[in-house]
Amino acid sequence: MISFMNDYSEGAHFNIIKRLVETDMEQAGGYCSDQYCKEAKDRIKAAIGTEAGDVDVEFLVGGTQTNMIMISTMLKPYQGVVSAKTGHIATHEAGAIEHSGHKVLELPPHDGKLDPMDVAKYLDTFYGDEAHDHMVFPGMIFISHPSELGTLYTKEELKAFRMICDKFGMKLYLDGARLGYGLASKGTDVTLKDIAQYCDAFYIGGTKVGALIGEAAVFMRGCKPEHFDTQIKQKGALLAKGRILGIQFAELFKDDLYMKISKHAIDMAVILKAAFVEKGYPMYIDSPTNQQFFILPDAKLDELAKDFKFARWEKVDETHSAVRFCTSWATKKENIEKLAAAL
Amino acid sequence: MISFMNDYSEGAHFNIIKRLVETDMEQAGGYCSDQYCKEAKDRIKAAIGTEAGDVDVEFLVGGTQTNMIMISTMLKPYQGVVSAKTGHIATHEAGAIEHSGHKVLELPPHDGKLDPMDVAKYLDTFYGDEAHDHMVFPGMIFISHPSELGTLYTKEELKAFRMICDKFGMKLYLDGARLGYGLASKGTDVTLKDIAQYCDAFYIGGTKVGALIGEAAVFMRGCKPEHFDTQIKQKGALLAKGRILGIQFAELFKDDLYMKISKHAIDMAVILKAAFVEKGYPMYIDSPTNQQFFILPDAKLDELAKDFKFARWEKVDETHSAVRFCTSWATKKENIEKLAAAL
Amino acid sequence: MISFMNDYSEGAHFNIIKRLVETDMEQAGGYCSDQYCKEAKDRIKAAIGTEAGDVDVEFLVGGTQTNMIMISTMLKPYQGVVSAKTGHIATHEAGAIEHSGHKVLELPPHDGKLDPMDVAKYLDTFYGDEAHDHMVFPGMIFISHPSELGTLYTKEELKAFRMICDKFGMKLYLDGARLGYGLASKGTDVTLKDIAQYCDAFYIGGTKVGALIGEAAVFMRGCKPEHFDTQIKQKGALLAKGRILGIQFAELFKDDLYMKISKHAIDMAVILKAAFVEKGYPMYIDSPTNQQFFILPDAKLDELAKDFKFARWEKVDETHSAVRFCTSWATKKENIEKLAAAL
Amino acid sequence: MISFMNDYSEGAHFNIIKRLVETDMEQAGGYCSDQYCKEAKDRIKAAIGTEAGDVDVEFLVGGTQTNMIMISTMLKPYQGVVSAKTGHIATHEAGAIEHSGHKVLELPPHDGKLDPMDVAKYLDTFYGDEAHDHMVFPGMIFISHPSELGTLYTKEELKAFRMICDKFGMKLYLDGARLGYGLASKGTDVTLKDIAQYCDAFYIGGTKVGALIGEAAVFMRGCKPEHFDTQIKQKGALLAKGRILGIQFAELFKDDLYMKISKHAIDMAVILKAAFVEKGYPMYIDSPTNQQFFILPDAKLDELAKDFKFARWEKVDETHSAVRFCTSWATKKENIEKLAAAL
Repeated sequence: MISFMNDYSEGAHFNIIKRLVETDMEQAGGYCSDQYCKEAKDRIKAAIGTEAGDVDVEFLVGGTQTNMIMISTMLKPYQGVVSAKTGHIATHEAGAIEHSGHKVLELPPHDGKLDPMDVAKYLDTFYGDEAHDHMVFPGMIFISHPSELGTLYTKEELKAFRMICDKFGMKLYLDGARLGYGLASKGTDVTLKDIAQYCDAFYIGGTKVGALIGEAAVFMRGCKPEHFDTQIKQKGALLAKGRILGIQFAELFKDDLYMKISKHAIDMAVILKAAFVEKGYPMYIDSPTNQQFFILPDAKLDELAKDFKFARWEKVDETHSAVRFCTSWATKKENIEKLAAAL
Repeated sequence: MISFMNDYSEGAHFNIIKRLVETDMEQAGGYCSDQYCKEAKDRIKAAIGTEAGDVDVEFLVGGTQTNMIMISTMLKPYQGVVSAKTGHIATHEAGAIEHSGHKVLELPPHDGKLDPMDVAKYLDTFYGDEAHDHMVFPGMIFISHPSELGTLYTKEELKAFRMICDKFGMKLYLDGARLGYGLASKGTDVTLKDIAQYCDAFYIGGTKVGALIGEAAVFMRGCKPEHFDTQIKQKGALLAKGRILGIQFAELFKDDLYMKISKHAIDMAVILKAAFVEKGYPMYIDSPTNQQFFILPDAKLDELAKDFKFARWEKVDETHSAVRFCTSWATKKENIEKLAAAL
Repeated sequence: MISFMNDYSEGAHFNIIKRLVETDMEQAGGYCSDQYCKEAKDRIKAAIGTEAGDVDVEFLVGGTQTNMIMISTMLKPYQGVVSAKTGHIATHEAGAIEHSGHKVLELPPHDGKLDPMDVAKYLDTFYGDEAHDHMVFPGMIFISHPSELGTLYTKEELKAFRMICDKFGMKLYLDGARLGYGLASKGTDVTLKDIAQYCDAFYIGGTKVGALIGEAAVFMRGCKPEHFDTQIKQKGALLAKGRILGIQFAELFKDDLYMKISKHAIDMAVILKAAFVEKGYPMYIDSPTNQQFFILPDAKLDELAKDFKFARWEKVDETHSAVRFCTSWATKKENIEKLAAAL
Repeated sequence: MISFMNDYSEGAHFNIIKRLVETDMEQAGGYCSDQYCKEAKDRIKAAIGTEAGDVDVEFLVGGTQTNMIMISTMLKPYQGVVSAKTGHIATHEAGAIEHSGHKVLELPPHDGKLDPMDVAKYLDTFYGDEAHDHMVFPGMIFISHPSELGTLYTKEELKAFRMICDKFGMKLYLDGARLGYGLASKGTDVTLKDIAQYCDAFYIGGTKVGALIGEAAVFMRGCKPEHFDTQIKQKGALLAKGRILGIQFAELFKDDLYMKISKHAIDMAVILKAAFVEKGYPMYIDSPTNQQFFILPDAKLDELAKDFKFARWEKVDETHSAVRFCTSWATKKENIEKLAAAL
């Protein structure tokens, strides 16, 4: 059985595993006070550069945890976060944001993305006509890059969100669970430095891009919440052996590994997409990243399911379904060839 | 200046005020342990009857408090509440439900109401296709009766919600901030007994229907949460002088006062509506209760605003706006006549 | 049956009731936007004066609600509040502070009071030896004045708390549920202006000092939390008919009524205390305010309980118990005389 | 520099590392749905046996997270958890329990332990004299085994806690962050099966006993909270690559590895203790587990600090301090010999 189910089916990239083995019996300080975490932070900061202002980096364990913590510690109690209705925080995080006390203010998605025009219009109405003292104040814009449907924001869109945030005193936060796959996408005009420039905070996903666990939370220009360690301890997110986060991100940001393995996933996605297109299967959405969505006859899907794993997205009509096939840093070309043959 | 701004501009009905004066220097037990609370509960229970099963009544102070408490104490931590996107809890309670840790699952409104068909479809999809372990479980249906746009549910609709709740293990909760005005509406086929039969919990609004403060929370068939007093104490909602809630509801449910004053509000609304209709102003929505919505030219509204208060609802076009005029238990017919003259 | 059980057995002072009657059918703005609230705030500000800096006044409904809201909106998420182990927030508020997410850091009481020396020592240790990143940061000192045992802080003690708060970046918050009875106590050197000078925030209790409901939250020198109305709406504490809070406090702070009725309660307490002392019953604690604590034989208590209500505090030995008798603004001298006769 | 600072300075046991390497490129299901998690659960269940009733095992990431989740999902909203004042949840978890909405009800510690007699007395008073509707209900007893001072409960004590819990309708929960070191201690009469018999829930610590990360939450006799996966997802504690928790615990519970490495730590602690005792340094507390506490002159400590890391516990007098030295599964005998030489 070959799985294209998601981008977290395998363990970690060989370099990371190798380094975990090498350092295993070294004694290190706890709670991310060790030298590996320091090294990892330095390398991430070097990749981000200094053009966009001061950078703080902290390590957390998983994506939902990171979203919940970054959003709830940056928002004020009377604020909510604006998100596409298909945003991960709005759909598949079990209400973690609301559990932390904040409303997710949902706007209609466009190919999985939030439209700056929609946000601007919403805010104009909010601050224009409404009796907003009894309403949740929009304090942050949440975007995923790539989005939950694999699509990407443009530099123009990020800039537009930035202008909106500046105008209305809001924060721009970017969920980068699959950030590498977005940055490595062919044709994107958005770089890591752009993200650092336009966002107040974002995270660089590790779990889905080569690490065993771990996400690197980045706060720009002094946006890191006060007593951050205490706040994450309070939420059960502070790892005793923080070193394993440091070791992983130190490897991922050594010799451009993060981008290299991300590029591999994109290369595999391009081949995979071509295989579907060649057979004439329509795209459900045209994604430039590692998540690929197609519409296939259910009968064909049942046949494929004997040898391949993939995610059933939704019924399209009586006899067809949309499905998602993911590539990742770990995808083998031979497996895509087997899939192509099966198609 | 005459106000039709809302239904809570005046104090309390004369009978209530009179009784507060009469009982003022009596010594009573604290925290709703007094005889007035007992009397009020008995009268409310008598009005509800025993046909629909056991009834528990508790007194709370205000509407948002009551919604927040009833919803958050009845839901399990992993559950959210389904509401129309225009529902009070979704719009004008400052995120109180989310602040209590629960997501409001928003569906499109139809004339301010939630459609049972929409809910059924949503639940079928939720339990059918979706990976719901990472999603918020729908644990309750929230409806306002009358709705935030003054419209009313039919008995058939309540029955449909009940069937949905039974099928999916959910609670049906009805926000009755203006319940009297719904029950007294001409043509409604929904009675208090129907509400008790179909809902698991609801509240009988006092603040907007003749009381100074106070809402009567009703739990049917054993739905009252355990240690309710402790839970509301914890949320700062337990009144030391609970007697003032008891005294008020004892009066409201004496000699049918609650329905009599509600009917007065409806009678006034009928006259008010006729005045607008007669002048040819279109209805924004056709409401059978005490909230009336019309579309008027902005110039006319500016003129009216010199002598009357009302709520601007939303811009309809460049030169027209929708507005809300409320009647209440306290509305004087002469004031409606003055308004009619001004129209 | 005559009750000395507590200080909230009766309704409201006659002046308040009279004013509620007079204003009943006036139309007023909602949510404390009315002229009565404005008038009440102005009078309270006048009583506090301007010497201690800017003053903000807001109205809330009850004591636990006020403590929970003032503490949770002033603390940062990683902070807790230091309190005597006998403090109301630590014992009899059903965990409302913890329910809002904050730890109550309990120190041993001395006659119901927190000792500045204990607090200073605790803070020196906290910031000296401890690994405080994994600990709750002390962000506020909570004191009740009078304390839960009727005792009073001195001006020197308030000053000491102020110095501690300044040194450690903390807020000083005073629970004034019975503030009038503290200020009117014979021999106290603490005035309302002192409290305004030394505290960052406090509340002036209405429920126990002549009002039906209501507490006046006072924030000094810009300490009022941002978007306070939205925050209290979110917690279900914003009254639609805020006018009834305004009307009551406007009366309480007209012609010094608050202090006059507080003084009456103290006068009654002095007589009541003398009656017990004269009969040789030992004091459980020597309280200078309206709560009086004595130790009596259980047999005697059972006898008294036939005609009088009072609070059993705790068993002192096999045959004796400590009990609390409260006077209040509403206590009638004749009832104390009846009690004295029964003793 | 040799560290005895804590028991989480090294990475993971070699068997675990080896297995992580071997399985790295296998594709596995997400969120603990993989075969390794299943295998690990089966082995843990086998170690616990079936005598004490049904067993549920779930994997979480760290200790504070596990305490917070197990306590907050098992308690009802109106309940708190009884703990020694020195309990980890009461001191060094940054208020995580309170952040989840529950009060930690603190009782005095005895050598770091909670005394069943104290708890019984507290509960008798609570349900006897107190007005408990306004108080936090004690819903759970929290104990750490070993305690934060390395001490151990006896079987008799566990039995006593069980009887108390049965009498008062409470849950008994045991924090087993260092459980292996407790079970392997010489002279303890408490086995894993005893813990399963007397407790409602507990966790088997991985982070401090040989794993990179991970704790195994055990729920006995149906105590696992409903929709547990959703609840932990909501708190950001559900790992996408749950396999790494499964792989680790599958190794730890293969061929008795968990007990073998725990026994090693105890053997090392015995030697370490002997070295101190031999030099005449008094014990701060007599611990039978891997945490050892001694009192040394500050001058000597400064000298030791040049070559060794250890934890300063507290100042004992002007010139002496209590310190903690930890052994662990990873402690090398040669390092203890170097320490002994330096003493």
